[in-house]
This record gives sequence, structure tokens and C-alpha cells, in this order.
Amino acid sequence: MKIKTTVLCLPVTDLQKTLGFYQGVFGFSDAQIEEGILALEFPNMSLFLMEKASYESYTRKADRAALMPGASAPAVISCAVETHQDVDHAMETAKHHGGGAPGVAAVDATSGGYTGYVTDPEGHLWELVCPNQQ
Amino acid sequence: MKIKTTVLCLPVTDLQKTLGFYQGVFGFSDAQIEEGILALEFPNMSLFLMEKASYESYTRKADRAALMPGASAPAVISCAVETHQDVDHAMETAKHHGGGAPGVAAVDATSGGYTGYVTDPEGHLWELVCPNQQ
Repeated sequence: MKIKTTVLCLPVTDLQKTLGFYQGVFGFSDAQIEEGILALEFPNMSLFLMEKASYESYTRKADRAALMPGASAPAVISCAVETHQDVDHAMETAKHHGGGAPGVAAVDATSGGYTGYVTDPEGHLWELVCPNQQ
Repeated sequence: MKIKTTVLCLPVTDLQKTLGFYQGVFGFSDAQIEEGILALEFPNMSLFLMEKASYESYTRKADRAALMPGASAPAVISCAVETHQDVDHAMETAKHHGGGAPGVAAVDATSGGYTGYVTDPEGHLWELVCPNQQ
């Protein structure tokens, strides 16, 4: 099998709130909702945040309902960022845009990277890692 | 914030079984488990399938436990493939490698693409779409 492209799709209950979060925290200032989907291009990842009904129009074909993460972690999207300040700033701004910043940023004992976590308004979990000592 | 790289991390309870699935269905014949992680490079997506304890060594820092998909769909990874046969073959081989093929492959009324779904042994859901009429 030859795969040509890959897209990660996640369900969202409030797409407008989600848009505000990704604009404010990740800097997607030009992002727009189109046909129930907020499509975001990250380095090496295409992400579709999909309104639940739109999302389930696909998953129902596989006999599955959307499952929102709530306070659990069905997935983690891990990003390498350039500076410690990027980690700290994301954790600070996440709270102001309907998301959260669970835990505290710290140097990971294994990797040595400065690591923090943010959640978007739906609970989707992001890890932010600055691998170096900047 | 400038993101340099992005990795999708998903939890797994039986990494050996997961390895067999991705070798058999997606053709990652050289894939190996290293330090509790099966790292797979897809076009435009780096995927880490992580043994649950390893996965939670990260998510616990954000006060979150792993959530296995079971029969629900917390996420969908959608792939464009080249031929109808790629879709059919994945659905057939998925069953032989500990996964599933819920639903039936069909031409999607909206996109016109020939679409099918497979689940890996942990229930992680994949959509396979052949966009053209090959």
C-alpha cells in the first residue's frame, strides 16, 4: 500500500472557541472554519479539527461515535519548539483562550528538554518541548 | 511560537501485537520497538505508538491517564491511497493482523472518494481514501 497524504482528525464540540484557542496560542491568525472544519498545517502534520456532527458523518461509517478527551489523554501531540519562552508563553496564553495548562513546565529527566503541556478547549493534549538550553 | 517538528503519540497496551499489525497492513516491514515505542514515519506524519506505561510517564505530568479508544473514535487518521485495491487490501489484511475493518468500503457521496476504515489491535481508527476512479 502506498500512502500519499495523511491527516489527523479530531472531534470538537465548539469550533468557534477552538478557533480562538489556536489563533491565540499557536498563532494561526488567518485560520478559518470552513464547512465544519478548522484545518491547520503544522510542520509535518495536517490537523483537521472537526465539528462533532461532521466528524461523526465519517466515524459512523465505521460504527464509531466521537469520543471527547475530557480529562483523559487518548492522544498527545508533541511539538518541538525553539525556546523555553515558547513553552511558558503557550502555557500562559492557553488559559486565556479557553484551554488549560495542567502541570508545571520542567526539564525532563530523560530527554533533558524543557517540557510543558497545554490542553485546548476540548481537552486535546499538546506537549511542548524545547530540546536545548536556550 | 515557532514549532519545529510535530509527533502524534498514541497509547498501546500490546506493542508486539501492534507491531505485527503495522508490518502486515501498512507494510512497515523493518519497523522495530525501541524503549517502549514503535515509531512510524508516514507521509506528513510521525506516529509514536507508545506502550501505556511509557505514554503515561508523559501524560501524568499533565495529570492525565491514557484513554484507549475501545469501540469509540477519539481520533481518526485519514490517508489518501493510490488505488481502490489499497483500500480493499488493507481492510482484508487488518482482520488477519489483530485489527478490524468496521463498515464496508464505498464511494463517499460528498467527496467521491472510495473510502474504507480499519482499526488497529487497540482500536485506533484509520480512514483510507482513494480519491480517484482507479
